[in-house]
Amino acid sequence: MTLSPSHDRTEAERLDATDPLAGFRDRFVIADPALVYLDGNSLGRLPRATAERLERVVAEEWGDQLIRGWEQWIDLGLRVGDAIAAAIVGARPGEVAVADSTTVNFYRLAAAAVDARPGRTAIVTDRANFPTDRYVLEGLAAARGLAIRWLDPDPVEGPEPLDVAAVLDGDVALVTLSHVNYRSAAIADMAAINSLARDAGALTLWDLSHSAGAVAIDLEGSGTDLAVGCTYKYLNGGPGAPAYLYIRGELQDRLRTPIQGWFGQRDQFAMGQGFEPAPGIRGWLAGTPPVLSLSAVDEGVRLVAEAGIDVIRAKAVALTEHAVALHDAWLAPLGFELGSPRDPARRGAHVSVRRADADRLCAALIDRGVIPDYRAPDVIRLGLSPLTTRFVDVWDGLATLRELAA
Amino acid sequence: MTLSPSHDRTEAERLDATDPLAGFRDRFVIADPALVYLDGNSLGRLPRATAERLERVVAEEWGDQLIRGWEQWIDLGLRVGDAIAAAIVGARPGEVAVADSTTVNFYRLAAAAVDARPGRTAIVTDRANFPTDRYVLEGLAAARGLAIRWLDPDPVEGPEPLDVAAVLDGDVALVTLSHVNYRSAAIADMAAINSLARDAGALTLWDLSHSAGAVAIDLEGSGTDLAVGCTYKYLNGGPGAPAYLYIRGELQDRLRTPIQGWFGQRDQFAMGQGFEPAPGIRGWLAGTPPVLSLSAVDEGVRLVAEAGIDVIRAKAVALTEHAVALHDAWLAPLGFELGSPRDPARRGAHVSVRRADADRLCAALIDRGVIPDYRAPDVIRLGLSPLTTRFVDVWDGLATLRELAA
Repeated sequence: MTLSPSHDRTEAERLDATDPLAGFRDRFVIADPALVYLDGNSLGRLPRATAERLERVVAEEWGDQLIRGWEQWIDLGLRVGDAIAAAIVGARPGEVAVADSTTVNFYRLAAAAVDARPGRTAIVTDRANFPTDRYVLEGLAAARGLAIRWLDPDPVEGPEPLDVAAVLDGDVALVTLSHVNYRSAAIADMAAINSLARDAGALTLWDLSHSAGAVAIDLEGSGTDLAVGCTYKYLNGGPGAPAYLYIRGELQDRLRTPIQGWFGQRDQFAMGQGFEPAPGIRGWLAGTPPVLSLSAVDEGVRLVAEAGIDVIRAKAVALTEHAVALHDAWLAPLGFELGSPRDPARRGAHVSVRRADADRLCAALIDRGVIPDYRAPDVIRLGLSPLTTRFVDVWDGLATLRELAA
Repeated sequence: MTLSPSHDRTEAERLDATDPLAGFRDRFVIADPALVYLDGNSLGRLPRATAERLERVVAEEWGDQLIRGWEQWIDLGLRVGDAIAAAIVGARPGEVAVADSTTVNFYRLAAAAVDARPGRTAIVTDRANFPTDRYVLEGLAAARGLAIRWLDPDPVEGPEPLDVAAVLDGDVALVTLSHVNYRSAAIADMAAINSLARDAGALTLWDLSHSAGAVAIDLEGSGTDLAVGCTYKYLNGGPGAPAYLYIRGELQDRLRTPIQGWFGQRDQFAMGQGFEPAPGIRGWLAGTPPVLSLSAVDEGVRLVAEAGIDVIRAKAVALTEHAVALHDAWLAPLGFELGSPRDPARRGAHVSVRRADADRLCAALIDRGVIPDYRAPDVIRLGLSPLTTRFVDVWDGLATLRELAA
């Protein structure tokens, strides 16, 4: 992307005028039109359809239908899972379910994976992986007597297949990484890393939280074994909305969940003796799902599916290119460094810029009505959610940051 | 309770007229005033305050405050946990947290308990325990190489301390039971069983799902180690609302959660290396909580706290006594048997009546606007939720059942 020499706002306005997704912003509640919200990668905005859906779920389904509401709720996590599979992560029907939190899903898939590779003693992951994934793995490794082989990749470019190859051998049970790193937005090469892991006899588990709904994902084509992800970022499912888990079809009945619950029982309401898992992904469900929060996920996913991931991805590239160009023009001279890959093919839908006083600058931005995310010690993370972020938001946010940082 | 010889409806009307909780029914949405809802022990009704709260949470907290909403959400599960501790389960501040599902909470506490008793090889539970608890234990026992010692107590009266004493020895790591049985409503003697388990060096884990909000519970006074429970029954938290976990203060830092997540990390947003649990119950949290569903729990718990558990319990006794008297007068002559204890001190807030054609009768009741629960093979379960069930509901429901069964 080249900016006009003045980098003036008309450039951003022109990009908004030709944005095929521009109309989607009206599908969301924009409570404060002056707010520059660059944190849709932490908590996506509220879709108008979700506000209406929740009113119906509360008043009609819960308030009026009462227990009879379960006729429509009982399979909701599987139906939304199928929608995510088809439109967002490139999986087959019956391979994705929405349930529990990312942490709980990550735990049960990581545990199932290492249990499926008895005798192997190591897990490979990235020191820069999202904290909850690392903490789960530490607990699991301690409980099972396994070692974690920590990758220490370049903090901007993230783990490369060569980094993984260097620590892979016949002792590795599981390779688990984030597809898009939560700080740098670096995209890992899923297919290449899966291929290396498969050759070494290890299973793969990807955390898609920062990529689903922002970049194209092909779980099937890339040969992914297992994946989890959250729904409250680019999928706009609402605060703490339930997460999803993916298990490649062939593995669903070969692996064993550590948490056997009644929602995974073959004949749930017979309430009989002896756990017998339902076939397929249903057998991996555990407890009763939080229906209000789950209903919101349904609406958020529907909007992403309607927009189409390829169009979303193209806008994510354009938005982040715009942000990188403004960083180079305005912020680099003020001592900032780019904390995200320069190659748009290697970058998700957020851009990190780094300076030692990031903490103070983030607070000052918020006071000025620009909402980024601070990540210790020096990162200002600018989330550019393609369905709701405009090019003028990028321009306004970075112009404000330039003023504050000068 | 003695009924007038005619068992006419005026008796029930008189009881409603003097019911100190009668006014609470108006605090709930009664969408269809003709519906006789006897399933508040499966899914409690919608509080009016909850409908209003959810509108605010969706429109203002999510839609308007966006990511800044976390200032009020981050500790919500602990605040609601403290409210449950104080008003409902007899625990101390900092001993209860709302999080995840009953199944996930049960898994993590059961796993932590058996891991805290290395070398012990057995778990004691009840074949009539709620299915999800049994299924979790089967998975855990298989994974850890433990045996389950199944109690087979009287199906109406439930497990007695003597039943537990008969299978307790130095090999038992964990004794886990439901406080109120989901079929019979039998109340187990928590204090006596805890005392036996403690003497044998075993930990105790109680499932309070069918008792919390219906009977008085004194976790501290009864010497309970661990407990879980759901919030969508008598606590009126909404479909699939998140559950709670209780860990006696002294045990919180001695036991170790199998699911280490970022919400349990001491300095969560430092996102640093190495899991270091936050002190107390917070260290047992794992993933991001479903805020919409959790907000509904806050309102449901508030109503129970306002009414007061002793007044609720007194009405539960009166409602179930009314149902038992009508069963004896009307249903026993038609071949029904009572599936719940006769002694009200041993009975929760539901009454089960049994006949071989219970399945057909439940379907017929629903067609007539009476909603009970069917539990295979022969149980009609009548849930009498004290905040919303009237004595005339009991009368009308059983009068309809008498007609259908004649």
